[in-house]
Amino acid sequence: MAVELVAPASLPSVRGVRVGVARAHIKKPDRRDLVLMELAPGTVCAATFTTNAFCAAPVVLARRHLQVRSPRFLLVNTGYANAGTGERGMADAQTCCEAVAVRGACRADEVLPFSTGVIGEFLPTDRVVNGLDAAFGNLSPDGWLEAAQGIMTTDTVAKGASRRIEIDGKTVTITGIAKGAGMIAPNMATMLAFIATDAGVSQPSLQKLLGRAVEQSFNRVIVDGDMSTNDACVLAATGQSGVAIGSESSDACRDFESALTDVCVRLAQAIVRDGEGATKFVTLDINGGATLEECRQVGRAIGTSPLIKTALFASDPNWGRILAAIGRAGLEGLAIDRVDVYLGDVCIVNGGMRASNYTEAAGQATMNRPEVAIRVELARGGHSATYWTCDFSYDYVRINAEYRT
Amino acid sequence: MAVELVAPASLPSVRGVRVGVARAHIKKPDRRDLVLMELAPGTVCAATFTTNAFCAAPVVLARRHLQVRSPRFLLVNTGYANAGTGERGMADAQTCCEAVAVRGACRADEVLPFSTGVIGEFLPTDRVVNGLDAAFGNLSPDGWLEAAQGIMTTDTVAKGASRRIEIDGKTVTITGIAKGAGMIAPNMATMLAFIATDAGVSQPSLQKLLGRAVEQSFNRVIVDGDMSTNDACVLAATGQSGVAIGSESSDACRDFESALTDVCVRLAQAIVRDGEGATKFVTLDINGGATLEECRQVGRAIGTSPLIKTALFASDPNWGRILAAIGRAGLEGLAIDRVDVYLGDVCIVNGGMRASNYTEAAGQATMNRPEVAIRVELARGGHSATYWTCDFSYDYVRINAEYRT
Repeated sequence: MAVELVAPASLPSVRGVRVGVARAHIKKPDRRDLVLMELAPGTVCAATFTTNAFCAAPVVLARRHLQVRSPRFLLVNTGYANAGTGERGMADAQTCCEAVAVRGACRADEVLPFSTGVIGEFLPTDRVVNGLDAAFGNLSPDGWLEAAQGIMTTDTVAKGASRRIEIDGKTVTITGIAKGAGMIAPNMATMLAFIATDAGVSQPSLQKLLGRAVEQSFNRVIVDGDMSTNDACVLAATGQSGVAIGSESSDACRDFESALTDVCVRLAQAIVRDGEGATKFVTLDINGGATLEECRQVGRAIGTSPLIKTALFASDPNWGRILAAIGRAGLEGLAIDRVDVYLGDVCIVNGGMRASNYTEAAGQATMNRPEVAIRVELARGGHSATYWTCDFSYDYVRINAEYRT
Repeated sequence: MAVELVAPASLPSVRGVRVGVARAHIKKPDRRDLVLMELAPGTVCAATFTTNAFCAAPVVLARRHLQVRSPRFLLVNTGYANAGTGERGMADAQTCCEAVAVRGACRADEVLPFSTGVIGEFLPTDRVVNGLDAAFGNLSPDGWLEAAQGIMTTDTVAKGASRRIEIDGKTVTITGIAKGAGMIAPNMATMLAFIATDAGVSQPSLQKLLGRAVEQSFNRVIVDGDMSTNDACVLAATGQSGVAIGSESSDACRDFESALTDVCVRLAQAIVRDGEGATKFVTLDINGGATLEECRQVGRAIGTSPLIKTALFASDPNWGRILAAIGRAGLEGLAIDRVDVYLGDVCIVNGGMRASNYTEAAGQATMNRPEVAIRVELARGGHSATYWTCDFSYDYVRINAEYRT
């Protein structure tokens, strides 16, 4: 199902991080559904969360805990999102943190809780707590791939990415996992992602680096334009490589940021490739905007258009729908007769109408591929934005019509 | 296919208006695809058009013509939208107007052209012109129902509505036709609608009355969130009833506006009931907003959410997705724990979580009906907005994946 995406064969460990995975039977029997990440003392954490006003209890609690302590454990369950669950949902998330704290010999506010799954049902905390012994029991530096499987919901492929770089003659590792695959729209990490590194980074720097990386990656993907209640992206830096990332102007910091962004982009793209029902992976390059924001408006208008997404599913080079989406994106004084659109290298729209040398055969050949690049030239200025999106298929409808049953 | 919608058995004529319909074989053989409306001398016209920056040649020309003269003829073709066709598209629209002017003994700028269909292909003007003789030949006061059929594209049911009211002891008729059924999002008349009345109304008043009626009707419907390049709504007032609608504060004007709005609402709802692939007709009532605009934001977020629309298709009372859409609608400082949501009369969300006395059986019974009402109480103020929308089904994907083939 997923577009040109296979699960990683393995994921490199990160010094200072151990991962444990359990089958806690939280919603479905006998699948990995509970993930525990143990962070060595001294680890520094940064995180970004959903900007949805309707956010889940674990998001509220994780935000609160992050403000008071550096976390020692991350706990992730699938099956239930623990969103729309009111005070009881907050108490349930707290119960889970306390159960981890008892077994992990730490404080409850040193645990960050994360949940993903159905909204509005209460979390069966007894099953989560019962699963903890198994998760603690198999804590290992090498548990990343199982963890990537353990956070999947409608995902069909486990998602992970890793980079190793040399800094000052020492090796720094950045490894991350993520899950999608629906309710995906860009405004902060619209999914769950957990990334760790053994570099040493101060908390303020780490938060800044994560924010910038998220902006270039997870905030650039659209599956369906819906924004989740539970999204979170966490970056933990253990410092155990012996490498300290210094000032932001240093070469080391630049190399680190580049590698971090690369890991985030690969995870973000994996989410789109495994978007619900996706059959196409689409890169939208919006160039020539007067501002960055107007490039984003155009990217979002195209990436969320049901008419464009169904045309992509049909491999139909329907440039009229693309122009119609650009035209309604809200750009002040847009001269549509200066707009060009390319499918891959094929110029399909020139000056707001079909390019004179365009042939359906050329457009069709480009659209038949599983990976499609759409480039829009607005001719209004020097700004650009890139989005990654996918098509709307029968399977998107099937998956989301059947999700709760 | 359409939700609780049947074509009108007949449509009352409007004194001063004659309608002619032809099978011009414009794109498909042997279907009504060309409609001509003749307006008696002295008729006053108002119109609203798409706000899409990418608008079709006929929209540009109709706007221009309206500014200089009162139209004598409206010409509508289906098959091709004549959008994204550049200078040649403008010339083609002009050619059609001139051909009408020759046969109708009027000026070319007394003709308003309208096109609907595929974007980006040139209009076969020879076929349009060849069809004009037949359209002129069957001009009749009674052609409204055939005209409603003649402007259909992916519509499955012809759409028309009419009201008769008494003013000063005389009968005033308002009759209108419209077509949908995809690329529908509210920002002006996102479709084609042609309405005529035999009341006498000054042009400035008519434009104001139409603007207000459109705001309460066509601008309140969402099929898929895409906005068309060709939308237009025209209201013609012939004055031939002998009734002159005077100042806006008069009883006559209030009665007339009420009847006009009723016709517009019925046409707008017909478009949603016949939305592409629709199996549900959904009324969204957003109450308790601090401003009208924030009610609209919430209505649009719900009405365009693929996750909500696929849940509606599945008759799934998935209130979590509704709350998630409300939460991302961009309302400043929204307290989700004060939000209530009703399905019909069933309170499903109370204070941001599942209502304590809600049962799935009650929600399911409501959702199983072809007409569903969703009411959101924001508890932030006294403003309200209503939208009409439909679900996303397999057929929406099929229709839009196959449209050009």
